[in-house]
Amino acid sequence: MSKSVDYQGAWQLMMNAGTLALVSHLGPDGDTLGSTLALGEALKRAGKKVILFVDDDIPHTFRFMPGVETYQLPKADVPVPCDLTVVVDASSKDRMGAAEDCLSAPILNIDHHISNTHYADWLLLDPKAAATGEIMYLMFQANGVELTETMALNLYTAIVTDCGFFKYANTTSRCMMAAADLLQYSIQPNEISDLLEMKSRDTIELLAKVLPSMTFYADGRISTMEIPYELYNKEISTDSFIYYPRYIDGVEAAVMFKQVEPNQTRVSMRSRNVDVSAVALSFGGGGHVRAAGCTIGAPLPEAKKRLLEVLIKAVEEA
Amino acid sequence: MSKSVDYQGAWQLMMNAGTLALVSHLGPDGDTLGSTLALGEALKRAGKKVILFVDDDIPHTFRFMPGVETYQLPKADVPVPCDLTVVVDASSKDRMGAAEDCLSAPILNIDHHISNTHYADWLLLDPKAAATGEIMYLMFQANGVELTETMALNLYTAIVTDCGFFKYANTTSRCMMAAADLLQYSIQPNEISDLLEMKSRDTIELLAKVLPSMTFYADGRISTMEIPYELYNKEISTDSFIYYPRYIDGVEAAVMFKQVEPNQTRVSMRSRNVDVSAVALSFGGGGHVRAAGCTIGAPLPEAKKRLLEVLIKAVEEA
Repeated sequence: MSKSVDYQGAWQLMMNAGTLALVSHLGPDGDTLGSTLALGEALKRAGKKVILFVDDDIPHTFRFMPGVETYQLPKADVPVPCDLTVVVDASSKDRMGAAEDCLSAPILNIDHHISNTHYADWLLLDPKAAATGEIMYLMFQANGVELTETMALNLYTAIVTDCGFFKYANTTSRCMMAAADLLQYSIQPNEISDLLEMKSRDTIELLAKVLPSMTFYADGRISTMEIPYELYNKEISTDSFIYYPRYIDGVEAAVMFKQVEPNQTRVSMRSRNVDVSAVALSFGGGGHVRAAGCTIGAPLPEAKKRLLEVLIKAVEEA
Repeated sequence: MSKSVDYQGAWQLMMNAGTLALVSHLGPDGDTLGSTLALGEALKRAGKKVILFVDDDIPHTFRFMPGVETYQLPKADVPVPCDLTVVVDASSKDRMGAAEDCLSAPILNIDHHISNTHYADWLLLDPKAAATGEIMYLMFQANGVELTETMALNLYTAIVTDCGFFKYANTTSRCMMAAADLLQYSIQPNEISDLLEMKSRDTIELLAKVLPSMTFYADGRISTMEIPYELYNKEISTDSFIYYPRYIDGVEAAVMFKQVEPNQTRVSMRSRNVDVSAVALSFGGGGHVRAAGCTIGAPLPEAKKRLLEVLIKAVEEA
C-alpha cells in the first residue's frame, strides 16, 4: 500500500532528491509523455539531474513534443543509480517495462487512474483529473513552479489527448480551466490539434477499403465494420475506425471486427448507453460500460455471428 | 455606419425595450442558434416579450438545443411590431432573410465576424471572439445576468461549434475560460459532443463510396477526393469529407471536387500553409489562406485538371 502525498508532499520528495529517474508507461500516449516531459523540465530548472525512461517506441504522432528526443530505453540488466524514481501515469508497476528492473530507488507515482494498484512507495493520485497532465499542472501551481512555453505545450498535449479534446465524459471545468491557462503561454491550439489529428496515408487508404463493409442490424441500432485477415496489417493504426459507425444517427452500439489471425478475431465495441462490457465479459474480455473489447478464437464471420447474437439481445433488452 | 456599443450599452438598449425580435442568420449554425436562444432566455427572465426568428430550416443536429422549438419563420409580408430587433451572429443584413422585410424596429447587431458590414444601428462587435456565444457570455457577465443550465448549454454549444471543439486557430484562453465556466452549470460536455458529432447513415455510406477516389499528386503533398454527379445528392451533408485528405501526414493541400451539375463542379480546398484563397480567386472564388473554394463551369474531370495545374504550381512554389 502506498503512502498518499499531496501536491506539496510530492514536490518536496522530488526537491529532496539530487538525481531522479522519470518513467513513462508502455504504449506511451500524449498524457504520460507530456506529463513526464513537463516534470522533467521543471526538475532540471530546479537544478536536478533527470533521466527519462520509456520502454517502448514513441509513436510518430508525439515526436513533436519538446524534449521527446531525451528519452532513453531502459535496459533491465544495466542498473541506474538515482535517489528517486517518479512513475508518471502508470496505474500498475508492470507498465514500467524494463525500467522496473533497472531502477531500485524508492518510487513516487503520479497518476489519475482509478484502477491504480498502489504499487509505489508514495502516491499522488487524483481519479477526478481527466489527465495526469492536469495533476502535474495543479502540482506546479501549488508549489509556485513557473511554467515555460515548452512545459505548457507538453501539459496541454497531455490534457487534450486524455480528454479527447474536451469531448470525453472526464472533461471537467477544472480540467478546462487548466488548459485555458496553458493557452496563455503562447502555444497554438490549432497547431497542436493538427499534429495530433494527423493520420498516415496507409490508415486512410485502409479506411477507404474497410468503410464499405459497414452493416446495420437491429433496425439500425447496431452497426458493424470488418477488417478481414487479408487487409489486416498490424503496422497500420485503426484505432479511430470504430468512431465511424459509432457516430451514426440511430446507432446504439458499434462493433469493429479485426481478424488478426486466421482463427482469431479481435472485437472492439462502443455504445451510447448499452453495457457493452457485459457483452465483452461473456467472451472473456472486458472494459467499460460504453467501451469494451474481447478476442474470439474463430475466423471473422463466425466470431461476428457469435458476438451479434449476444449484442442484439443486449440492445433489444436495453 | 453603425454606432459601436459595449457590453453595458448593448444590454441597456435591450432593457429599454419591451418587445424584442431576435434574429438568427440563414444557414443557422450552433453559434447563431445557441447565442440567440441564450439571449432570448435572459431577456424573458428580465420580463421582456421576445420573438425568435430564423428564415431557414434548423438542421437536425441542433434540434436538441433547449428552446429551439420556439423559433418562428419570418413572413416578408407580415410586419411584426417590436421595439428593438437584435440580429445575432450575422455579418450582413441579407443574412436575416425575410426577417429583414417584416421587422422595421431599429437594429442591434451582436457579432464576431471581422467582415461585418456595419448595417445595424448599434453594433456590439468583437472579432477576437471565437464565437458570438463568447461575446454573449461576456455581456451576461458584465451585466450581472445570472445563467441557467439551459443558457449554459446553449452558450457552450455556440462556442464549441464555432471553435471546432477548441481545435481552430480562433481558440483563445478567454474563449476556453468562458467554456470552462459554463461547464460549472451541470452540463455534460460528452453528451453535447455526442449530439454534435452525430452523422446521418447516408453521410457515412456516401463517404464509403467517395473515400476510394482519394488520389495524391505532387509527391503526396496534394490529396484530392471526388463526388461525381452520379453520387451527388444535395440532401446529404458532405462538409466533413475534406478533412480526410487534409489530415494525412505529408499532405499540404487537400481538395474536394463535387460535381453539382453535369457542367458545374464545386471545389473546396484546405491547406496547412499554402495560400489556397489565391488559387480559388483565379477561378472566381475566394476564402481564407487555409480554407477556400470556387465553382468551375466544367464537368469534374476537366475542372480537376484545370484546378490541379494551378494548385500544383502553388504547392511547388511554396
